[in-house]
Amino acid sequence: MRSSTVIVLGADGYLGWPTSLYLSSSGYHVVAVDNLVRRRWDRECGTSSLVPIRSMGERVQQWQRSGGDDIEWQRLDVCDADALSDLIRRTSPEAVVHFGEQRSAPFSMVDREHAVMTQVNNVTGTINLLFALRDHAPDCHLVKLGTMGEYGTPNIDIEEGFITIRHNGREDTLPYPKMAGSFYHLSKVHDSHNIHFASRIWGVRATDLNQGVVYGCATDETLRHTGLATRFDYDVIWGTVLNRFCVQAAVAQPLTVYGEGGQTRGFLDIRDTLQCIRISIENPPDAGEYRVFNQFTEQFSVLQLAELVRDARAAHGLDTLITHLPNPRVEKEAHYYNARHQRLIDLGLQPHLLRSTLIDSVIETVERYRDRVDLSVLETPNVDWRTGRTAQPALVGQRTSWRAEREAIATGPVA
Amino acid sequence: MRSSTVIVLGADGYLGWPTSLYLSSSGYHVVAVDNLVRRRWDRECGTSSLVPIRSMGERVQQWQRSGGDDIEWQRLDVCDADALSDLIRRTSPEAVVHFGEQRSAPFSMVDREHAVMTQVNNVTGTINLLFALRDHAPDCHLVKLGTMGEYGTPNIDIEEGFITIRHNGREDTLPYPKMAGSFYHLSKVHDSHNIHFASRIWGVRATDLNQGVVYGCATDETLRHTGLATRFDYDVIWGTVLNRFCVQAAVAQPLTVYGEGGQTRGFLDIRDTLQCIRISIENPPDAGEYRVFNQFTEQFSVLQLAELVRDARAAHGLDTLITHLPNPRVEKEAHYYNARHQRLIDLGLQPHLLRSTLIDSVIETVERYRDRVDLSVLETPNVDWRTGRTAQPALVGQRTSWRAEREAIATGPVA
Repeated sequence: MRSSTVIVLGADGYLGWPTSLYLSSSGYHVVAVDNLVRRRWDRECGTSSLVPIRSMGERVQQWQRSGGDDIEWQRLDVCDADALSDLIRRTSPEAVVHFGEQRSAPFSMVDREHAVMTQVNNVTGTINLLFALRDHAPDCHLVKLGTMGEYGTPNIDIEEGFITIRHNGREDTLPYPKMAGSFYHLSKVHDSHNIHFASRIWGVRATDLNQGVVYGCATDETLRHTGLATRFDYDVIWGTVLNRFCVQAAVAQPLTVYGEGGQTRGFLDIRDTLQCIRISIENPPDAGEYRVFNQFTEQFSVLQLAELVRDARAAHGLDTLITHLPNPRVEKEAHYYNARHQRLIDLGLQPHLLRSTLIDSVIETVERYRDRVDLSVLETPNVDWRTGRTAQPALVGQRTSWRAEREAIATGPVA
Repeated sequence: MRSSTVIVLGADGYLGWPTSLYLSSSGYHVVAVDNLVRRRWDRECGTSSLVPIRSMGERVQQWQRSGGDDIEWQRLDVCDADALSDLIRRTSPEAVVHFGEQRSAPFSMVDREHAVMTQVNNVTGTINLLFALRDHAPDCHLVKLGTMGEYGTPNIDIEEGFITIRHNGREDTLPYPKMAGSFYHLSKVHDSHNIHFASRIWGVRATDLNQGVVYGCATDETLRHTGLATRFDYDVIWGTVLNRFCVQAAVAQPLTVYGEGGQTRGFLDIRDTLQCIRISIENPPDAGEYRVFNQFTEQFSVLQLAELVRDARAAHGLDTLITHLPNPRVEKEAHYYNARHQRLIDLGLQPHLLRSTLIDSVIETVERYRDRVDLSVLETPNVDWRTGRTAQPALVGQRTSWRAEREAIATGPVA
């Protein structure tokens, strides 16, 4: 098994890249695939990774120079069905890890074009993959990145993908009801339904990882060399909340909480994302089995996270303010939240729980690149859920049809 | 209210056309919209309506000659967001009835291209409509055709869109879990999630009509003149099951049941579809309310339907055979099925229950057009759920990308 092939789709992304390195160092032959569109979206949004990232070609070379095994880099768009199908046939992967989707909720809420593009892009890529697996790798294990955001915030415990319902004297175990909170999160709901269907009719093996919010940027592999760094987003479109707070703390700005900050979510360390994916691959589902793991390690409210960052700074004698901004999203700010996350632990996940040392190390990373911090992307909530209004009006209505995306991807320069 | 405007999207279809006539005769100003793609798909599939249908222009003229009010016919593709948005702004509709989607499960299962085209077409059109309503007609009532097939066949009672779940000592009312059985049915699941979201964040008023299988082709309005007829599909791609059985009976062929025939579904008379839509329009939801009505009047198994047709023939001294074919679909052939369908009845629906007189009248219609019956489209199950294999191999792999569809729609001749 240890020389078998794993394809990572979306390998140029925040998590796709360190996952590729980690699976390579775990003994898999990794085929790293990306269409590089994320780098173009950065240019369109006026955002960029705080930590400088190299081109995919350079990163793959650096990995070998740093003692890693050969990673096969292939520029490919998962929405190009023929190319994806050829790749699956040629490489006969044991598993495909699918990060290759548009993954920003605010980006999906900018306007109609972004909403449609996000759903068409994500749904089409996943359907293409399901057909390619059916036709060319029926035993391959699809490891698909979903999101805890598929569930929303129900007033009952969140289970892992399915719930046993007793109703009018009868009982069935059915897909857990979904109440996603953005067109992006909805695209993952659509994917989940499509994958589950493919498992039922074609026998596809699939693990849907409903992931929480990831924090951190350092893994054992990325730390081998600065040229192996993964991207670190802190802006309001691409950044995740703890990373954003750490940047704000590092530059002595107030931590900006949307609304009351009672929004509770599941969180995990980037190193646990990698562990969870390896564990999923090493413990594949049966043929025709569609399973869902809730992939996070701890629940926090947004305000709790802000307080953790404030406290970590206080331990160094530094004062940090917390301010509340009008919430641009439509979401409950005080709600019940209790989500099960047991199945990956049962399979051996050893969580890295959030400690002030992690917060310190993220802030140290920020300080190293302090001159690259663009305060403008931190200032105000950017995309309003109700109107699509954004602080970067240039973003609204720009070319982002799915067709235009495909053409730009097919003809664009290598980033 | 009686001179207010209702837009019917998909007005050239089996149900869209008689709905347009019925709403016109009920006093609404009807804007009938279609991109005519269904007629092209017929040509591609080698299928056609048993009952001859006129062009939309001719039908609308005939309606006026038959004493009907002016119906405004507009050729328009709901995937053309700008055109749709302009239409909504210009007409300020009280309601939009949205039939404008690819609606064949077998067609969606032919191959990857058809699966992707179906989902992209349906999801994009509905998102376009949601944004157009938000921006130009925020009080307009969206009446969206969904399908009972969104629910699948759970082992508990099916409720109308939402279910109250008691779990670990807590309780919430959540969207009913979905287990759709084709890429087409899944597209409706995706639509439902997107519409529900738009209601929550933008206050869109929406009624999602989870419709059962419709039978019959005659309504008070279509009977006014042969030039007002609606299409009658009996082939294995577009035909619904009772209509197919009536054609088989009329031409003295065995009634072909897939598998055991224990598949139980909800059914309704075409005249009840029209009633349900009018009732929904006349009783709009509140702003921000997303409600689901299960739109059918009776449950039957497929075998029961075949037996009803056989019995109706026997009453005229005619023998009819029932044969069982291998089931091309992946579905349970014996299962629990009990779906609530109370809300439309509470609002005043007077069901036309299935009687042998209806079966007789459908068979009489078939006999009138007996020389148009193409036995080849009845013979074998056409599209296999597992392989996409079809008796019409020309269908597989033909141009059916979403982009190609849009280009063909934009440039094609008026049917």
